[in-house]
Amino acid sequence: MTTTPVKSFDLDALTASLEGIEIITEPSQVAKLSQDYHTFSPVLVPKLEGKVGDIVVRPANEAEVLKVAATCVKHRVPVTVRGAGTGNYGQCVPLHGGVILDMTRMHEIRWVKPGIARVEAGVKLAALDKKAREIGWEMRMTPSTYRTATMGGFIAGGSGGIGSIQYGFLADRGNLLALQIVTMEDEPRVIELRGDDVQKVKHAWGINGIITEIEIPLGPAYPWAEVIVTFPEFMAAARFGQALGDADGMIKKEISIFASPIPDYFAAFREYIPDETHAALLILAEPSLELLPGLVEQYGGKITYQKTATDAGKGTHLGEFTWNHTTLHARSEDTSITYLQSTFPADKNLQMVEHMYHHFGDEVMMHLEFTRVNGTVVPVGLQLVRYTSEERLNEIIHYHEEQGVFIANPHTYIIEDSGRKVIDPEQLKFKEMVDPYGLMNPGKSKVLEFKI
Amino acid sequence: MTTTPVKSFDLDALTASLEGIEIITEPSQVAKLSQDYHTFSPVLVPKLEGKVGDIVVRPANEAEVLKVAATCVKHRVPVTVRGAGTGNYGQCVPLHGGVILDMTRMHEIRWVKPGIARVEAGVKLAALDKKAREIGWEMRMTPSTYRTATMGGFIAGGSGGIGSIQYGFLADRGNLLALQIVTMEDEPRVIELRGDDVQKVKHAWGINGIITEIEIPLGPAYPWAEVIVTFPEFMAAARFGQALGDADGMIKKEISIFASPIPDYFAAFREYIPDETHAALLILAEPSLELLPGLVEQYGGKITYQKTATDAGKGTHLGEFTWNHTTLHARSEDTSITYLQSTFPADKNLQMVEHMYHHFGDEVMMHLEFTRVNGTVVPVGLQLVRYTSEERLNEIIHYHEEQGVFIANPHTYIIEDSGRKVIDPEQLKFKEMVDPYGLMNPGKSKVLEFKI
Ligand SMILES: Cc1cc2nc3c(=O)[nH]c(=O)nc-3n(C[C@H](O)[C@H](O)[C@H](O)COP(=O)(O)OP(=O)(O)OC[C@H]3O[C@@H](n4cnc5c(N)ncnc54)[C@H](O)[C@@H]3O)c2cc1C
Ligand SMILES: Cc1cc2nc3c(=O)[nH]c(=O)nc-3n(C[C@H](O)[C@H](O)[C@H](O)COP(=O)(O)OP(=O)(O)OC[C@H]3O[C@@H](n4cnc5c(N)ncnc54)[C@H](O)[C@@H]3O)c2cc1C
Repeated sequence: MTTTPVKSFDLDALTASLEGIEIITEPSQVAKLSQDYHTFSPVLVPKLEGKVGDIVVRPANEAEVLKVAATCVKHRVPVTVRGAGTGNYGQCVPLHGGVILDMTRMHEIRWVKPGIARVEAGVKLAALDKKAREIGWEMRMTPSTYRTATMGGFIAGGSGGIGSIQYGFLADRGNLLALQIVTMEDEPRVIELRGDDVQKVKHAWGINGIITEIEIPLGPAYPWAEVIVTFPEFMAAARFGQALGDADGMIKKEISIFASPIPDYFAAFREYIPDETHAALLILAEPSLELLPGLVEQYGGKITYQKTATDAGKGTHLGEFTWNHTTLHARSEDTSITYLQSTFPADKNLQMVEHMYHHFGDEVMMHLEFTRVNGTVVPVGLQLVRYTSEERLNEIIHYHEEQGVFIANPHTYIIEDSGRKVIDPEQLKFKEMVDPYGLMNPGKSKVLEFKI
Repeated sequence: MTTTPVKSFDLDALTASLEGIEIITEPSQVAKLSQDYHTFSPVLVPKLEGKVGDIVVRPANEAEVLKVAATCVKHRVPVTVRGAGTGNYGQCVPLHGGVILDMTRMHEIRWVKPGIARVEAGVKLAALDKKAREIGWEMRMTPSTYRTATMGGFIAGGSGGIGSIQYGFLADRGNLLALQIVTMEDEPRVIELRGDDVQKVKHAWGINGIITEIEIPLGPAYPWAEVIVTFPEFMAAARFGQALGDADGMIKKEISIFASPIPDYFAAFREYIPDETHAALLILAEPSLELLPGLVEQYGGKITYQKTATDAGKGTHLGEFTWNHTTLHARSEDTSITYLQSTFPADKNLQMVEHMYHHFGDEVMMHLEFTRVNGTVVPVGLQLVRYTSEERLNEIIHYHEEQGVFIANPHTYIIEDSGRKVIDPEQLKFKEMVDPYGLMNPGKSKVLEFKI
């Protein structure tokens, strides 16, 4: 392995070698395609400022990917793979210039069968969903960015989202079946990883090979209704969320709970959520809808909005107010807001949620997403933070960690400092094989920086 | 309300009033249709000996049910509703003679839509499953008696089974949508109960109205594969069951774990389960199958049998060795064996399972069914007991209860002494309305006995 990726290279020679493959060299476009949504983090913005690629390459098929890989290896050019660039941690911002490998032209859905699909990496999640629904299936889980995000980006950079209350997270065994990758060796190869081997590349931020194809399990496409429930007390809303999550006979795809004043940022839903009330945004299977009022009543809530599955496809999508879309809406009104990513301990009484809710008050506004974590329904927090300084943000993070709340820090572009904490030794070994020159998304891993 | 149901009545007058409706009077047939599978309990057998109805009535439609109800009210004749008679607690053994109302001629499937079906009460579970699968759906959960049991009997007498690892139990909100019943008033009515109101009749052992129609949610019909895994250590098998249950990305319908020597009773599977090994019988969605070996390896198990979804319909059905079919197979070789029904506390380490396994040794052979209970994966025990005396059986039950294991006693024909413990006051109020003369399955409720 070389110690540092080469930062300068002969751009003309590279371009010439890529003859026949679509490239973008226009600087403002290249700059745009070097960005992602790390702008949610006031800590990351200054750190990633001015980081741009030298050229964007847009392969149309695997043969072209192989050619790009061989060329970049030959010229020792860093490669940052890019899907839709909706990542939040600067995952696809190139730290050392080089090639931005834009995968969005590889958008063929290879096949969809009951319960499984195989797609090219550049397929948008919404496109797969649409196709799969034709035969009664859909993606098990999607980030709230499903309309723009790509499959490759979700596998390499995402974690879960709408649907995680049913199926857990992408990292859970069974939620990904196979990956096909192109290596960055002297003679790039195509490798198919199946079963547990997919873990070698999953959530590796594009440092462990270029994903070209993905085989993913599907879930049944229920007719999904959208519902808003309001509550006078926040903890009643939170406990309702837990109870709905725990109701095994109720099929749901999304349970998000928002402490006041977060719903004030949801312009489209303002009329359904009175001032100073707390809200639950739900996506429920229609056959379970009739049972909802009984549960809502138990927690003193009120159903204020309900959209049938047929109508849910039209107009405002409730899902686009959940997960990190909540942060997006809040920031569109107040750019001083940033966020946390946390997992609360399993506890049906939600005592830690209650503690944090009172402890931080308005500084850390509670936004919970109920999910399944290792078989148990627990709330994940995507709390909105009124940002004052990096120091205070770290204080808030440490306080959570001290109290036993797991934090996947979204204010870092280093894999090990974010949710992963440690790099899987299997991933490291695999990295050494598929990217011997350390050209893939260089600078994103501390371990690798030390090792190289 | 009268104090005791009338035990004698004018059979000829009754028969004459039922003109046009199919009846059975031949004594040996009536005796047979007065039986169920309470024979699994050496405690119940002597208590229910000789209990038979006077006549079996077999209505073909709701109009006939209304006529039977009116007639029985007029003549003050007890009515014991019967599905397939596969209940285990003498639920459909008439304690005070009278009419056995056999519902099996009412077997029309009204409609099946994606996610929901509506059927008459006499429909066999397997028949609904077959019909629903034509459009990609199936019953969420079935008892292991699905090939013979009726929908009405399952709702009124059953609790859950194959599928409960995914959807919890019948009693859980959302697993039953609506019931139509015929009352036993002077002028019998048809009442439709929807939403939470179904709780008034669910699992009421036929004392709260005659169920004529059922609306039930369906689950997606995955291609289900059947698998057997063996383990040298029992606790490794049990912990594997818990881990598979907790693996949110793995779609499963059945996880049953058997301590040696239970698998010795499974003649059909003997060759796949070596002597002195412990076994897991699994039903898994095919898209999850590829991920199984990794998990099995983690717990030191060995996959010894695997049947694809296409083949699973043929020959031996693995599901028919689980739940109380285990007891059936054991008893077919050794009639001195009886069983327990227990729910272990939620604990991923399964310490209480381990304790009981060692504490009782061969006297109480461990059979676990992993299920979802209020959002958490926990093992239900259907332990096989080498029966010596009622006293010892009660000792075993009490020891479990003392240690915090919930026992749903299958050795009683009194609702409150079995799983229910207390009768829901709503059910009681409803009972007073729909069965003012206490004619329905009289003698099965302690509370009612006291109140009347
Ligand atoms: C408003 C908002 C809401 C969000 N909500 C969620 C959410 O609910 N859940 C969630 O998990 N995420 C969420 N995210 C993050 C992100 O949108 C998703 O993870 C999304 O799936 C990323 O897909 P993408 O195509 O945009 O990936 P990109 O941002 O383009 O890439 C992400 C990472 O994957 C790598 N990569 C991309 N394609 C490939 C490939 N073919 N081979 C190898 N590596 C590749 C990139 O190098 C990068 O490191 C959200 C982001 C925003 C801005
Ligand atoms: C080997 C074996 C395995 C079993 N496994 C399971 C299992 O896995 N899970 C489980 O839950 N049970 C199990 N059971 C118990 C039983 O088979 C099921 O509960 C089954 O669903 C009962 O259906 P049935 O038609 O045989 O009901 P029946 O035995 O005929 O009736 C059961 C009760 O329901 C009442 N009833 C029947 N029909 C109506 C109606 N239309 N209106 C009102 N009341 C009515 C009866 O009066 C009676 O009280 C098992 C039994 C055996 C013998």
